[in-house]
Amino acid sequence: MRILGVDCGSTRTGLGIIDSDGLRHSLVYTVAVQTNVKDPMAQRLAMIYKELLSVIEEYQPELAAVEEVFHHANVQSALKLAHVRGVALLAIAQAGIPCNEYSPNAIKLSVVGYGKAQKHQVQLMVKTLLRLDGAPPSEDAADALAAAICCANHQGFQRKLHSS
Amino acid sequence: MRILGVDCGSTRTGLGIIDSDGLRHSLVYTVAVQTNVKDPMAQRLAMIYKELLSVIEEYQPELAAVEEVFHHANVQSALKLAHVRGVALLAIAQAGIPCNEYSPNAIKLSVVGYGKAQKHQVQLMVKTLLRLDGAPPSEDAADALAAAICCANHQGFQRKLHSS
Repeated sequence: MRILGVDCGSTRTGLGIIDSDGLRHSLVYTVAVQTNVKDPMAQRLAMIYKELLSVIEEYQPELAAVEEVFHHANVQSALKLAHVRGVALLAIAQAGIPCNEYSPNAIKLSVVGYGKAQKHQVQLMVKTLLRLDGAPPSEDAADALAAAICCANHQGFQRKLHSS
Repeated sequence: MRILGVDCGSTRTGLGIIDSDGLRHSLVYTVAVQTNVKDPMAQRLAMIYKELLSVIEEYQPELAAVEEVFHHANVQSALKLAHVRGVALLAIAQAGIPCNEYSPNAIKLSVVGYGKAQKHQVQLMVKTLLRLDGAPPSEDAADALAAAICCANHQGFQRKLHSS
């Protein structure tokens, strides 16, 4: 099964595509879409949307995983991120891809085994689980791949549950 | 000048189109896009985006006005609204329409003359300024038209400033 993971951010949005049988995962493609903070938000959203559509068209994922948004301390950052998330959900819905949403803690728990794992621990586990030679190109790419891996694990678990 | 106003909401999004010479405004079209809260957010975003694109294509506005998002007391509602706002900004950017963003207070100040005006006061002033026979069809439609009127007043003011 081919899965798209998206890590939304108003300056950098990570996209990651993996193939998975629910147990073993392999990297297909990953990229961090960088936008210019000096550009108007509308223009940055259009760039992220275009890149996401292009990745979906090229790699044809069957499932998507997007991290849920929480406000934590910085509500303004969360609001900006929610704009990007809206656009990501739109692109995924338009492509007819079922979309799963996971909390940051659920993703870390699934990938690292600990819901409050640090960024570098997520990167290390993504590298290990996808058997990469080096770390993913950026934190955002690692987070996108982590979302995809979480979704793959979730699918694997569901399959086991229904076959048992 | 033809102006599109958008009032974003996760359940109802108001769209309003007016014609204005900067002093007098007239109603062209208004609608409140209603989505089902039981549907997944992605599906609701796709519906709002489609409706917005269709209105833009039919009425060809030259300018757009979208209310800024603030979190106030309910951050979760603001985050949902920001998803819709992201999709609205995307549709406007894709159509190549310059987009102005105004705070709720700036819109009320421009339309009612008082930044903390109540909903019914905004509706009444929108009805008066657009010389409508009755109130706008909904609060969301009134708020969208108010954003468009604020933008028209702003443009009128800018024009006076540059010609003086």
